Amino acid sequence: MSKSYEALKPLLEKAMAYQTAKILFEWDNETLAPEAAGPYTSKVVGTLSDSYFHIITDPEFQSLVNECKKEKGLAEVEAAIVREAAEEIEELEKVPAEEYRAFSELVSESTRSWAKAKKDQDFESFAPILKKIIDYQKKFAKYRAKDGQKLYDVMLDTYEKGFDMETLDRFFGELKEELVPFLKELMDRKKDIDDSFLTGDYPEEKQEQAARFFAEYVGFDFDKGVLAVSAHPFTTNLHNHDVRITTHYSDRVDSSLFSVIHEAGHGIYELGIRDDLTQTLVGQGASMGMHESQSRFFENIIGRNPAFWEPVYTKLQEIFPEQLKSVMLEQFVKAVNKVEPGLIRTEADELTYSLHVLIRYEIEKQLIEEDLSVDELPKLWADKYEEYLGIRPENVSEGVLQDIHWSQGSFGYFPSYALGSAFGAQMYAFMKKHMDFDGLLKKGDISAIREYLREHIHQYGKLKTSREILKEMTGEDFTPKYYIQYLKDKYGALYGLTGSERR
Amino acid sequence: MSKSYEALKPLLEKAMAYQTAKILFEWDNETLAPEAAGPYTSKVVGTLSDSYFHIITDPEFQSLVNECKKEKGLAEVEAAIVREAAEEIEELEKVPAEEYRAFSELVSESTRSWAKAKKDQDFESFAPILKKIIDYQKKFAKYRAKDGQKLYDVMLDTYEKGFDMETLDRFFGELKEELVPFLKELMDRKKDIDDSFLTGDYPEEKQEQAARFFAEYVGFDFDKGVLAVSAHPFTTNLHNHDVRITTHYSDRVDSSLFSVIHEAGHGIYELGIRDDLTQTLVGQGASMGMHESQSRFFENIIGRNPAFWEPVYTKLQEIFPEQLKSVMLEQFVKAVNKVEPGLIRTEADELTYSLHVLIRYEIEKQLIEEDLSVDELPKLWADKYEEYLGIRPENVSEGVLQDIHWSQGSFGYFPSYALGSAFGAQMYAFMKKHMDFDGLLKKGDISAIREYLREHIHQYGKLKTSREILKEMTGEDFTPKYYIQYLKDKYGALYGLTGSERR
Repeated sequence: MSKSYEALKPLLEKAMAYQTAKILFEWDNETLAPEAAGPYTSKVVGTLSDSYFHIITDPEFQSLVNECKKEKGLAEVEAAIVREAAEEIEELEKVPAEEYRAFSELVSESTRSWAKAKKDQDFESFAPILKKIIDYQKKFAKYRAKDGQKLYDVMLDTYEKGFDMETLDRFFGELKEELVPFLKELMDRKKDIDDSFLTGDYPEEKQEQAARFFAEYVGFDFDKGVLAVSAHPFTTNLHNHDVRITTHYSDRVDSSLFSVIHEAGHGIYELGIRDDLTQTLVGQGASMGMHESQSRFFENIIGRNPAFWEPVYTKLQEIFPEQLKSVMLEQFVKAVNKVEPGLIRTEADELTYSLHVLIRYEIEKQLIEEDLSVDELPKLWADKYEEYLGIRPENVSEGVLQDIHWSQGSFGYFPSYALGSAFGAQMYAFMKKHMDFDGLLKKGDISAIREYLREHIHQYGKLKTSREILKEMTGEDFTPKYYIQYLKDKYGALYGLTGSERR
Repeated sequence: MSKSYEALKPLLEKAMAYQTAKILFEWDNETLAPEAAGPYTSKVVGTLSDSYFHIITDPEFQSLVNECKKEKGLAEVEAAIVREAAEEIEELEKVPAEEYRAFSELVSESTRSWAKAKKDQDFESFAPILKKIIDYQKKFAKYRAKDGQKLYDVMLDTYEKGFDMETLDRFFGELKEELVPFLKELMDRKKDIDDSFLTGDYPEEKQEQAARFFAEYVGFDFDKGVLAVSAHPFTTNLHNHDVRITTHYSDRVDSSLFSVIHEAGHGIYELGIRDDLTQTLVGQGASMGMHESQSRFFENIIGRNPAFWEPVYTKLQEIFPEQLKSVMLEQFVKAVNKVEPGLIRTEADELTYSLHVLIRYEIEKQLIEEDLSVDELPKLWADKYEEYLGIRPENVSEGVLQDIHWSQGSFGYFPSYALGSAFGAQMYAFMKKHMDFDGLLKKGDISAIREYLREHIHQYGKLKTSREILKEMTGEDFTPKYYIQYLKDKYGALYGLTGSERR
C-alpha cells in the first residue's frame, strides 16, 4: 500500500463513521424518535456533520488525496476511493463550514416539520422552512458551479453525472411526445379494469406479513436487513450487512405491497455491494438513477409481471383469504397494472409515472432557475396536475406535500426516477435475450435474475458510473427507446391495442 | 463567560455528540439491528469511542480544563462540568487509546454474543469473550488505581463514590444479619399466597397496552420517550427530550408490568434533568445508586403499594378481563408482593432482592480480587443460589447468564441496586412525614410525589453526589436502617407477624 494512502485510510474511516452515525440518526428520526427530541438531536447531528466536513476540508486530508492522485501503484479500489474523495473535497470545500452545519441541522428539523405539515394538511407551517432549504441549496450550488454553469445543472449533476437540463429537456421531450398521445389513446378506450378489491379492510398485521414475505421472496435478506414503518417509504444502509427499508400501510393493499418490493430492490442493491467496498466512499450504489433503476426493476419489471405472480399469488390469497379468494390471478395482475391518472407519484402506474416526474422537474427548474415563490407552489402544483393528468389535488397532503425530498434539500433528485425506469427497461430488453426471464419468474426462481444484476451492477458500488455500467452490461449507450417500447408493448397488450394502432 | 471555558465548550459539545451517537448505536444494537451487522457496526462504534477518547485526552483540552479549574468566576453549572471533565480525563488518560477503542468494539460484539448464549443456554460460547472483558476491566482498573487501591474498589468507585469494599462488606453484612433470619421466619410460616393467576395466557399486545398505560400513569412522557422490546429491559437517554425504555414480555404479567414501571422510574429521572444541564457532562443522573433508587422507588415503593392499585386496578382488569375478572384487588396486591426465593433477580420480591445482589457482589469480588476462573462461574453461581436462597438454577440462562451487565464490562455496578433500594427507603421515610403519600396514591395523583422527587433529586443531574442529595433531602447521612425497617414493616404486616415477633 502506498504511504500516502496508508495515511489517508484512517481519516477516511473516521469520516465514514461520522456519516454512518448521521444515517442512523436520520433513520431513527423518521421511524422512532419521540416528537420533542427534534431540536436537541439536531445539535448532535450538526456536530457529526461538522466533524465529517472538517476531515474532508482539512489541508492534510487534501494534500494526502492529491498525493494519492499522482500515485501509479494504487489498486483499482484504492484509486476509486481517492477519486471519490477528491470529488467530495471539490463539493464541500466550497461551502463554508458553518453553513454546511447549519444546513444539516435544518434538514433534521425540516423532515419532521414536513411530516407534521403533511399530516395536518398545512403547507403554511412548512413553507418558511422550505424557503430556507431552497436558499441553502441555491447558495451551495452557486459555490460549486463551474463557470457559467446553471444552478439547477449543478444540482442535477450531484445525482446523475452527465444528465443536465439540456439532456433532460430532450429526454422528457421524447417521453412526452410519445407517451402523452399513447396514454390519451388508452384512456379513450375506456376499457374498464376492476381494481376495487385492492381497496378495503386489509388489516395492518396482515399487510406486514405480506410485506415481509414478498421482500424475502424477491431476495431481501432479513439477517442483514430491517423493515419498519415511516411516513414515506425509504431505504437506508449503514453498510452492506445492515440495510433498512420502510413502508407505510393504508387501506390499499397494493400500495404497501409494491412499495416494499420497490424498497427491497434498493436494499438488494446495497446488500450486493462487495465486502471490500462497504464502509468506504465507493460502498454505495453508482448513482441515484442506477438505484432507482433497480428499485423500479424489482417493483415493475419483476413485480408487476404476470409471470411473477403465477407461483405466488396463492400465497397472497392465503394471507388475505376473505379479501382475495374470489379474485382470479389474471384479474389481480390486470388490476395492479391498471392505468389511471392519479395524484400520488408512489402509487402511479408505470405509464403515468413519468408525467409525475416531469411535473416535479418543471417545478424544480422554476424554483431554482426562475425564482418561483414557494407560496405559489400549491397552486402551481395543482394546475400542472390538472394540465398533464386531468386531475386536481384537493389538499396539499395529496399535492405538493406528498414527497419527502424537498424537505431534505434533494433538488435534482426526481429526474433520476424517470431515468432509472429507462435504465431498467434497457437492461430488461438485453436480459431477455440472454435468459428465459419469464420462465424463471414462473418457476419462482428469482435468484438467477437477482444474481445477474448483482454480478453486472450491484457488486461494483461506485467503482463505475451508471453510464459505464449500462454500456458494459447491454453493449449500448443509454437510450430511452427501450423504455418507450416496453411501455407501449406492455400497455398495448393489456388494453388490447392492435400493432398498427400502436404505431 | 471565561475565555478558557468558552474555548472548552465546543470541544465538550463535540465529545457529547460522539457519546450520544454511541448511545444510539447501543440502543439500536439491542432493539433492532440485524444479526449480521455486528462486526461492521462495531467498527463504527469503535471510531466514535476513539474520537471521544481523543478529545478528552488531547493536551489542549486538558490545559483548558486545568485553566478553568483555577478560574473563580465560573457559574455553578460550568464549574460542575469542569469538575466532571477533570474526572473524565483522570479516568481516560491512563488508558491507552488503542485499548480503549478495542474494548469498545469488543463490548458491542459481546452484548450480542451474550444475548445469543442466553437464548441457546450455552455458557461456553460466551466464556472466552467474558474472559477478555474481565481482563480489560482489570487492566483498566490497574491503570486508574491510586496507590495501594484494590482493583474492585476502583470499579466500585466508578458507580458510587465513597462506597468501597469495606463499606459494602458492612452494608451487606447488616442486611444479611437482619434480613436472612427474618426471611427464614416468614418462610417458616408457610403462609400460602396464591399468585398462580399472574402466570398464563397474557397476550403480548395486551401486555404492551398495559405497559404503555402504566408507564404513562406514573409519569413517563411519551412525547419525549419511546418504549421498545429487548432481551433485557434497560433505559437509555440521548438527552432530556429523548429517553427510551425497553421491556420483555413473557407469560408472567407482573414481570413486564413492574419492569416497565422500574424503567419508567429511570426514564422519569432523566426526563426531569434541567434543560441547562442536558447534553453536558453533568446532564445525567447523579450515580448508578441514585438512579436505581428512583427506578426501585417507582417499582416498589409506589408500584407495589396497595394504595397505588386502588384507583387503577380496574384498568388492569379491563385490559385482561378473562384473566383478572375474578381476582380481587387485595388478592392481586398480595400476589405481586409475595415473598418467594427465586432464580431471576429482575423478578425477585423486594425482600430477597438484596440476596441476589449479595451473590453477585461476592462473585465479582472473587473474579476481580481472587482470580476466580470464568469457567467455574456457572457452578459457583448455582452453589451460592442454593446456599442463600435454597434453590438451584437448572441452566445457565436462568443462572449466570441472566443479566447483561458483565457482557458490558459493568463490574461494580450490581451493589448499586441494593444501595438504591436503601436510598429509596430513606427518602420514603422522610417523605411520608411531609406529605400524605398513601392518600395521594389513592387519589391517583402521582404528580405531587413525582414533582417532589424532581425538585429534590432529578433536576440536579450530576451537580451533586448521591450522598449530598440524600443528606440535603432527608437531613440525614446515608443509613441502611430505614431500608431494613421498611422491609420488616411491610412484610411483617403482609405475613401477619406480630410486633414482638418482628423484633
